[in-house]
Amino acid sequence: MMKVGFIGLGVMGKPMAGHLVDAGHELIVYNRTSAKAQELIAKGATGAASTGEVGQVSDVVITMLPDSPDVEAVLFEDGGLISTLKPGSLLIDCSTISPEAAAAIGGQLAATGIQFVDAPVSGGEIGAVSGKLAIMMGGEVEAVTRAEEVLNAFAGAMAHVGPVGSGQLVKAANQMLVAGNIAIVGEALSLLQRTEVDIDSALGVLNGGLAASRVLEVKAPKMLERDFAPGFRLDLHYKDLRIALAAAEHAKIAVPLTGIITQLVQALRSAGDGGEDHSALIKAIERLSGAATPVKEGAL
Amino acid sequence: MMKVGFIGLGVMGKPMAGHLVDAGHELIVYNRTSAKAQELIAKGATGAASTGEVGQVSDVVITMLPDSPDVEAVLFEDGGLISTLKPGSLLIDCSTISPEAAAAIGGQLAATGIQFVDAPVSGGEIGAVSGKLAIMMGGEVEAVTRAEEVLNAFAGAMAHVGPVGSGQLVKAANQMLVAGNIAIVGEALSLLQRTEVDIDSALGVLNGGLAASRVLEVKAPKMLERDFAPGFRLDLHYKDLRIALAAAEHAKIAVPLTGIITQLVQALRSAGDGGEDHSALIKAIERLSGAATPVKEGAL
Amino acid sequence: MMKVGFIGLGVMGKPMAGHLVDAGHELIVYNRTSAKAQELIAKGATGAASTGEVGQVSDVVITMLPDSPDVEAVLFEDGGLISTLKPGSLLIDCSTISPEAAAAIGGQLAATGIQFVDAPVSGGEIGAVSGKLAIMMGGEVEAVTRAEEVLNAFAGAMAHVGPVGSGQLVKAANQMLVAGNIAIVGEALSLLQRTEVDIDSALGVLNGGLAASRVLEVKAPKMLERDFAPGFRLDLHYKDLRIALAAAEHAKIAVPLTGIITQLVQALRSAGDGGEDHSALIKAIERLSGAATPVKEGAL
Amino acid sequence: MMKVGFIGLGVMGKPMAGHLVDAGHELIVYNRTSAKAQELIAKGATGAASTGEVGQVSDVVITMLPDSPDVEAVLFEDGGLISTLKPGSLLIDCSTISPEAAAAIGGQLAATGIQFVDAPVSGGEIGAVSGKLAIMMGGEVEAVTRAEEVLNAFAGAMAHVGPVGSGQLVKAANQMLVAGNIAIVGEALSLLQRTEVDIDSALGVLNGGLAASRVLEVKAPKMLERDFAPGFRLDLHYKDLRIALAAAEHAKIAVPLTGIITQLVQALRSAGDGGEDHSALIKAIERLSGAATPVKEGAL
Repeated sequence: MMKVGFIGLGVMGKPMAGHLVDAGHELIVYNRTSAKAQELIAKGATGAASTGEVGQVSDVVITMLPDSPDVEAVLFEDGGLISTLKPGSLLIDCSTISPEAAAAIGGQLAATGIQFVDAPVSGGEIGAVSGKLAIMMGGEVEAVTRAEEVLNAFAGAMAHVGPVGSGQLVKAANQMLVAGNIAIVGEALSLLQRTEVDIDSALGVLNGGLAASRVLEVKAPKMLERDFAPGFRLDLHYKDLRIALAAAEHAKIAVPLTGIITQLVQALRSAGDGGEDHSALIKAIERLSGAATPVKEGAL
Repeated sequence: MMKVGFIGLGVMGKPMAGHLVDAGHELIVYNRTSAKAQELIAKGATGAASTGEVGQVSDVVITMLPDSPDVEAVLFEDGGLISTLKPGSLLIDCSTISPEAAAAIGGQLAATGIQFVDAPVSGGEIGAVSGKLAIMMGGEVEAVTRAEEVLNAFAGAMAHVGPVGSGQLVKAANQMLVAGNIAIVGEALSLLQRTEVDIDSALGVLNGGLAASRVLEVKAPKMLERDFAPGFRLDLHYKDLRIALAAAEHAKIAVPLTGIITQLVQALRSAGDGGEDHSALIKAIERLSGAATPVKEGAL
Repeated sequence: MMKVGFIGLGVMGKPMAGHLVDAGHELIVYNRTSAKAQELIAKGATGAASTGEVGQVSDVVITMLPDSPDVEAVLFEDGGLISTLKPGSLLIDCSTISPEAAAAIGGQLAATGIQFVDAPVSGGEIGAVSGKLAIMMGGEVEAVTRAEEVLNAFAGAMAHVGPVGSGQLVKAANQMLVAGNIAIVGEALSLLQRTEVDIDSALGVLNGGLAASRVLEVKAPKMLERDFAPGFRLDLHYKDLRIALAAAEHAKIAVPLTGIITQLVQALRSAGDGGEDHSALIKAIERLSGAATPVKEGAL
Repeated sequence: MMKVGFIGLGVMGKPMAGHLVDAGHELIVYNRTSAKAQELIAKGATGAASTGEVGQVSDVVITMLPDSPDVEAVLFEDGGLISTLKPGSLLIDCSTISPEAAAAIGGQLAATGIQFVDAPVSGGEIGAVSGKLAIMMGGEVEAVTRAEEVLNAFAGAMAHVGPVGSGQLVKAANQMLVAGNIAIVGEALSLLQRTEVDIDSALGVLNGGLAASRVLEVKAPKMLERDFAPGFRLDLHYKDLRIALAAAEHAKIAVPLTGIITQLVQALRSAGDGGEDHSALIKAIERLSGAATPVKEGAL
């Protein structure tokens, strides 16, 4: 068992940290809003007064923060992690940030003898609570092997996908795929809902062939019930799509569908729906045609 | 067992008809190119000299033809099926045609006392040969129940999805979903291939989460190997997307992604690749950026 | 002066025919709804009882009809034009139809010794009334020269743009350009209207540079005043964009922007706005973001 | 006449500054690469050793820099303009930066009693050399009136379009319109070039109607001659489109066409063509269809 520091106890971070205690690790936690740490302290974790203090006493530190600037602040601000982490220690960043930012962080840490793994997760709050997240890891083999021992506490699946930054690239691809699948399911359902088709029967047979997807299986029923409680908020998906667009620019490939899907997500945010689940994307398709509510129009 | 007529012995139709013989039905077959019937006749089927003759001797007739005009010709030309089919007989059209055409055919047949079921299939040549097609049926309950007894010979999954024309609507939705999923997988892979990511590991973890789809599972490996042997040809998928666009127009809903994806498919056809598998759509993304061959550019 | 037949006295055709009388031509008119011919007969034209009769007595016949099937019916139905037009006579089709249909008609007429020019017009009802239409002519030099003598009566500009069908191809390009310019003006205005920018001042300076266009000059003010009285109806523009998409397919070039703009036009039609002027396209952009009415949001 | 400082003597800035000398202003210039100042000093301008020095001796300072960070550095770095500009002086920023950045700068300057006008220009190097730029000004009336006296030296057209930041918003709209018009001209020409249409005749008639635009007039001939020497580089247009996308996000309106056009520009940059004129956008359309060179395919 290891001394593990954890910084960022949000909706995802708190249950992830909880699994580390359950797995028997000696846990040191820090959160800007210290109240969020109480539950974990009650479970046996130690609270730290600053991010620097977390670095001082940990062998491995996990960060789970909203965006690149947050991770950079925790690391590089006065008295931040980089000034207290010991050479030979390991930083695992589970945040979703840009691949370029991850690569830059990895480079700066390497210069001071600190190992770095970017390890963004997929699976949402449900996956964090159940300890079944999919984790995409980028880094040196030795560092990734070490990271796996810790991340194992809340992983459903883990893969070492390449050098530092690769985890973020695969996460970016993941978010493109999910948004694309949601958008096209939105178009297909918008069509079927305006016909006399029995949609439940249709979904059954669609999921039996090449059109099958986890999105069609999990999200289509919620779209039909107009249940858009998150899940995963459109505001966050928008952030992730911007990361994907920047990664594509960097890799020198244009992604026209991702470009337009990002605008569909932006349309929902413009309409004040950024806090809804990403499956609410179907509303952009409907609104475009001036049809807020699906109405059976009898297309036959 | 029934007297079943079968018209249209192409790549799909021939194995479908074969399963009917295997299932013990008395089969009468007709194909414009009569040579294609020989194999089935050798298996025990009877050859007919005209479509009219098929109608005369069958209780149930199945058509499996390229497009609406072909189905209409077989039915309504001089001496066509409609002039010989007996009241009370059943026509099952397994072709992929427009929902409007299917509804019109159903209406005309009903006026002469002939039952009609539109029953387009999904699963391609592999599904036809293995007898595991997914079949989407539109029609009256009684007619659909009767159709199931016959279609059962080559069905992996069957669903009654609504009144006449509904089978075609669900098939249109199916083709939108498949094209959309292929297109976004094309963008995601084009990105990852231009980075240092280990793509096999990446596909593993992507297929473990919300990004999972049958397309990602089945088509992504072929895209990576540049194996674009059909499978399902882009020329046919283009035809189906035009049916979907027309169906959306009819149902009064705009489908912007389907509009642009149809142009991507059209780009492949323009480049002379219409005979390749629809997974070749990834080439449109690559060509747009002037990158015919994926090259590792080291995005990190 | 010539004996000129005119078939199709709609919103465009009636004023066009009127200019021919004014120019001194001996005019024979036919319209399915014969009442529409009365005004022209009062002006000195002769009414014909059938399209065949028009062909019998004319040297030159002009058709101005809604779509390809209408032109084909007038020509090829029992007793239609092709059975009465004399060898050496000239048919000028001013309708907007597909280039392929125009080429096919030209071929059939050539086989019977009749000259053909496709001569679609641009400029709308205003241009027809003022006799200042832009006319794009496809055909043999001799036929086009002859056509110019007649069309001169209502032309602001004329150009011989290539062989038969070329007029329709240029008209298709014209409709792509107009729709594209309207759509991007719709996006730019939607943005500016949600800021503190003084839009009248902005339009002045935008029209002074590379962003200048006839659409920005003529249509932007109407968009701002929400004056969507046609002008040119979205339903007709949709028809023309479908012709353009088919022409691009035939010429083996994909047109992704036209593909998506066609869906934006379709969205307006779906919402019941197909009878409004094409400048109403701005409403699709606004509706997508859930913003039916532009509201100053103070973007600064 | 006034004491005018000028910072940023690039391709645009140098000729703009030259016009100020010609107009009789007392000019103080600064450029990071001081060699660029020599020509102006030879013309009678005074060279400054730092941006701070420019602020110290000027009543009005003009900045003409590549992007927001450059403007912010010149203003806010140690010893930057803000520390030396006197209360009551005026800063005019002619750079194209984000409206939000402009508004933030305006706010900070106002707090120290310095007037600010954002005044991005349109017209490119040609307009700068000829002194005929279109200038979009945002700011308080008094400041804008004062700015006009100076900018008059190189303005073809000037407009006060709203409060601080409005100039940048109108410039963003300008760049959306130009890119949109270029993109749709690219599609229309790509189509016509693959037919037997005589394109010169076609351009004549297209420019005579509602399809007319400055882009069609000025850029289409260059596209046909494959003359893509800038003019205005795609790399810069990409930067400006990203500003426009961010402005639209801020104003709460989705802009789907701008989203996809930005990806087309990105495709050119990915292919290594970012240094070409923005009219090279036509190459993205051609490449998508696998057609690097336009070939007459005889579409009729």
